[in-house]
Amino acid sequence: MSELERIGISLDKTLLDMFDELIRRQSYQNRSEAIRDLIRERLSTEETSNVNAKAVAGVFLVYDHHAAGLSDKLNAMQHSHLYHVISSIHVHLDHHNCLEIIILKGKVKDIQKLSGAMTSLRGVKLGKVNIMSTGEGI
Amino acid sequence: MSELERIGISLDKTLLDMFDELIRRQSYQNRSEAIRDLIRERLSTEETSNVNAKAVAGVFLVYDHHAAGLSDKLNAMQHSHLYHVISSIHVHLDHHNCLEIIILKGKVKDIQKLSGAMTSLRGVKLGKVNIMSTGEGI
Amino acid sequence: MSELERIGISLDKTLLDMFDELIRRQSYQNRSEAIRDLIRERLSTEETSNVNAKAVAGVFLVYDHHAAGLSDKLNAMQHSHLYHVISSIHVHLDHHNCLEIIILKGKVKDIQKLSGAMTSLRGVKLGKVNIMSTGEGI
Amino acid sequence: MSELERIGISLDKTLLDMFDELIRRQSYQNRSEAIRDLIRERLSTEETSNVNAKAVAGVFLVYDHHAAGLSDKLNAMQHSHLYHVISSIHVHLDHHNCLEIIILKGKVKDIQKLSGAMTSLRGVKLGKVNIMSTGEGI
Repeated sequence: MSELERIGISLDKTLLDMFDELIRRQSYQNRSEAIRDLIRERLSTEETSNVNAKAVAGVFLVYDHHAAGLSDKLNAMQHSHLYHVISSIHVHLDHHNCLEIIILKGKVKDIQKLSGAMTSLRGVKLGKVNIMSTGEGI
Repeated sequence: MSELERIGISLDKTLLDMFDELIRRQSYQNRSEAIRDLIRERLSTEETSNVNAKAVAGVFLVYDHHAAGLSDKLNAMQHSHLYHVISSIHVHLDHHNCLEIIILKGKVKDIQKLSGAMTSLRGVKLGKVNIMSTGEGI
Repeated sequence: MSELERIGISLDKTLLDMFDELIRRQSYQNRSEAIRDLIRERLSTEETSNVNAKAVAGVFLVYDHHAAGLSDKLNAMQHSHLYHVISSIHVHLDHHNCLEIIILKGKVKDIQKLSGAMTSLRGVKLGKVNIMSTGEGI
Repeated sequence: MSELERIGISLDKTLLDMFDELIRRQSYQNRSEAIRDLIRERLSTEETSNVNAKAVAGVFLVYDHHAAGLSDKLNAMQHSHLYHVISSIHVHLDHHNCLEIIILKGKVKDIQKLSGAMTSLRGVKLGKVNIMSTGEGI
């Protein structure tokens, strides 16, 4: 953390009231924290729209663990990309379905390529990728 | 517009520098305007997530104007829902394709239903709906 | 339109039943039309993720028409970018607020730049950009 | 898995060629698998738009682990909602920042409420929620 600065912003009373009501519902402690979150979110979105930026991602895969050979393939994929894969977590959803979240770190374009290969594997029912800034500086 | 209020927020110098750099690139005149936009966007998203809220929407349809009967059907649909349809604009994209944007106003759930019926019409190639707050109060 | 091809796909009965139920609710006439729409949507998303691809876009602006000089600035902006701006439509939402939809055509990156300049104008309360493939080929 | 059905769909040769090219780039083995994925994704989106539907979610939190008391608060939150929290994974991003992914299961509205309370905690820099269908039936 660097030093703290204080800035002033002006806005309509009606807008301020609606914002206060929103952050109260979302249990924010104060306006500063809520506005900082809006700013960080925007910066993260901007940053990760650059395919060469560094980012961290979670690849969500829902799959049927009876699907022949899928676990092995996913495992092999993770091991052959050690540079990007940080770790993974596995959850049993029901008798058939598993959720696996694989955490990747690296350039946005590498994350997109590797996650695309995972979600297109036969047996993977649902695949979704969540890319975020690594938080450096923000 | 109601009266203007001035509030103070505190944030890290690094975060502030990154934000200043971003709003400079996006040609904002000052921080207040940029932060007001972040707040309004969040309020709009919140509001339109309520299916009973009032909203305004643009339905984007890309279609082949040679598709038999499509223009007539779209027209009929708009006239039988006069309450929701405000107006529409038509653009010729190339020899085959048209873009039609239909502006709807009403409850989020009614907008979703009517726009769903439009985008699923045979001959409509691409359909997308953009729902926003009507701007009241913000 | 090119010639029609017929392909076969296999899927679980349960999945097919859920899909049939969904497209019935969305008033699709048949499965082919619904699957073609899914394919076109995916192709459009892929295409418009390339900043150099040609696309068409609608820029949605909600603004207070009492905001001094805003209409003039928006107008000037459209005229100095004649290559990209196709047309625009203006709707009165209430006593204060207007919705203006400006249709742009061009490279994704040019659309992003121009629409960014518009949404950051002082007086614009809400700005959203909807980018789509021009439909060529699909 | 239920029994397999085979259906036929018809589409333009140009559209089919573009689709084949796309799924080749995404390393799909065949069209059936790619189309099944499109269908499942749509069904999942539909399902999770219902606040009362059952879903599984990953809450991504990037935070500074020096933030006083944050880890304790997050921990307490997870323990007081045992019904929804399945497990969590923690990753060290750099000297300051951590990524924590918390997996929740339950009704969409409960997931939204709990994840909202987490992302608004003081010290949490970035928060994102990824909600998916539990895969049942699809």
